[in-house]
Amino acid sequence: MIVRFTGLGLGAATLTTVAAASGNTNADVLTASLDVSSFMADPVTPRSILIKDKDDMKVKMEMLIMKIQADFCRALENEEDPSKKFIVDRWTRAEGGGGVTCVIQNGKTFEKAGVNVSVVHGILPVDAVRQMKARGKELIGKELPFFAAGISSVIHPSNPHVPTIHFNYRYFEVTQENGEKMWWFGGGTDLTPYYLVEEDVRHFHSTLKKACDSHDAGYYAKFKKWCDEYFLISHRNECRGVGGIFFDDFEMHSQEDCFKFVKSCAEAVIPSYVPLVKKHRNNPYTSAERDWQLLRRGRYVEFNLVYDRGTKFGLYTPGARIESILMSLPVYAKWEYMHSPSDGTPEAKLTEILKNPKEWI
Amino acid sequence: MIVRFTGLGLGAATLTTVAAASGNTNADVLTASLDVSSFMADPVTPRSILIKDKDDMKVKMEMLIMKIQADFCRALENEEDPSKKFIVDRWTRAEGGGGVTCVIQNGKTFEKAGVNVSVVHGILPVDAVRQMKARGKELIGKELPFFAAGISSVIHPSNPHVPTIHFNYRYFEVTQENGEKMWWFGGGTDLTPYYLVEEDVRHFHSTLKKACDSHDAGYYAKFKKWCDEYFLISHRNECRGVGGIFFDDFEMHSQEDCFKFVKSCAEAVIPSYVPLVKKHRNNPYTSAERDWQLLRRGRYVEFNLVYDRGTKFGLYTPGARIESILMSLPVYAKWEYMHSPSDGTPEAKLTEILKNPKEWI
Repeated sequence: MIVRFTGLGLGAATLTTVAAASGNTNADVLTASLDVSSFMADPVTPRSILIKDKDDMKVKMEMLIMKIQADFCRALENEEDPSKKFIVDRWTRAEGGGGVTCVIQNGKTFEKAGVNVSVVHGILPVDAVRQMKARGKELIGKELPFFAAGISSVIHPSNPHVPTIHFNYRYFEVTQENGEKMWWFGGGTDLTPYYLVEEDVRHFHSTLKKACDSHDAGYYAKFKKWCDEYFLISHRNECRGVGGIFFDDFEMHSQEDCFKFVKSCAEAVIPSYVPLVKKHRNNPYTSAERDWQLLRRGRYVEFNLVYDRGTKFGLYTPGARIESILMSLPVYAKWEYMHSPSDGTPEAKLTEILKNPKEWI
Repeated sequence: MIVRFTGLGLGAATLTTVAAASGNTNADVLTASLDVSSFMADPVTPRSILIKDKDDMKVKMEMLIMKIQADFCRALENEEDPSKKFIVDRWTRAEGGGGVTCVIQNGKTFEKAGVNVSVVHGILPVDAVRQMKARGKELIGKELPFFAAGISSVIHPSNPHVPTIHFNYRYFEVTQENGEKMWWFGGGTDLTPYYLVEEDVRHFHSTLKKACDSHDAGYYAKFKKWCDEYFLISHRNECRGVGGIFFDDFEMHSQEDCFKFVKSCAEAVIPSYVPLVKKHRNNPYTSAERDWQLLRRGRYVEFNLVYDRGTKFGLYTPGARIESILMSLPVYAKWEYMHSPSDGTPEAKLTEILKNPKEWI
């Protein structure tokens, strides 16, 4: 028996014709199936629930991030040595949920590329609640039922002339002690070059701005500023990179409108970044340039371990998969006491920009 | 005119014959001088105050840590290529106080060796107060006058068969809003080997135990346990190394008794560690062993940036000298997704010990 489905309405996920006897045991599902064949692995949530609750935001977000993960991984593989593919780890979390972690390590183009999807639920412990409160969320209660679905990715290329990118898009639901359910989205995309090519930075920001503008003419300026403020290495008074967009507690519109905005942002990742990889991945470089890349990766580690709320949220969530959280760290990083680039060098030029974030478009 | 002084009573600092016309302009001091010639640099506090307040614990602690710094740096230089000496940076802090930072970088024996003294005072901001409260100190007030004098050191040797050592001894005074002055000592010494040589670990712990035992038969066991608990990388459920001793809020005896204990511990650093450097610094090693060392250094970075209260205290103290705080980070560190040593290897043996701290003596 062949059953045809259309209209999940996600855009990002596709419902197509699938033979019914595809291994599902749930009776409801025997007559229906999602095509997840383009995904890097099966989604976290059982297929029966994905079909039954297809209009629930939890499901819509999971399907979106699985699609974004697959598209991004394939786009990166196109820039990599054909023999080097993402390894795919599908994992489950004892306390509820799981994820799919995709990693390339020591590739020709990518020294480390990690793209992680997680869909987790359970009880949020006090320390994790505190990480949220710090963001302005006042949550009533100490241990709260929660659901979180997100994609996060950090790409550390081998060539110092290719920037590092990070993006993260997530959806949260928390039920407070008084029974009230709260939901919100958060996310962002930001670029960390080792050498500044202004044209590239303008391309990156323009692509994000276009995604923002299609929803609200004020979003880009607001979320660009938020990004500069968030990715600040306070103890050095310098930004991690040249920014991008960042937002949190995003809930000012209908759930559907918020979702559509997040979807546009996530879909802008490939056009914002992959052209820069193509352009520079075969640039010649010196060992001094490689050294500078490693020193800047040290700063990346400083930000991620000292300040990044996503990392802290992960480290404080019981049963979190540490290897997926810390896959954002580079293969190699370097620290040198009192390192400071000489005046007039490209390294000094980048440092100047990191200390004084500017408008790119 | 030659004036002779004796009896500062520190033991750690030496008063000897000095020509009076040694550049001091303060009239009181023209007839008196401290011999600081063995120190790596002039102490932070003006000489006139060091002489006038010689019985004040603030001065005694500063003189002790300057002496410990010099002795340790000289002992390490003896193990280093003769052409490679510590660089010495004497710095001042705009908000009050300063320090002396000594660093060897890219030496033959020491890839990075940092020995830092700081003597700072001013107003403790809320975030820094919070770091103290987390340690069990309930301080009344939000912004409190404080004084802190401490020595801290991390030695990352080049050879993977030489362990990393860290030690830190410090003295705090805080004046609460109600005018009450509190003081306490804290500190510890701990070892992080890359390859386990049980005999070496026993030597290290025995030396620390001997220093503890001369003050209280119960100290070693208590502070050894505290060390194992403190230097835990919670998110990996493994210790940073094979421990040592650690204590904080040390104030249960007279100030003088506490000081003497801290002095004994600080003086035990050289005999606990330098023999291990001598023994292994010329061991042959493979690139796989170097690789393992770098991976473990990644874990060291994780602990220092995510958990270490000293680092956090520094990062949250305005005007702190970041390069002195982060000199604890290695030159190179490495992260590999899902790295796990093969069963039966020396790397697996170490990992096993880090997950299950044991008694060494």
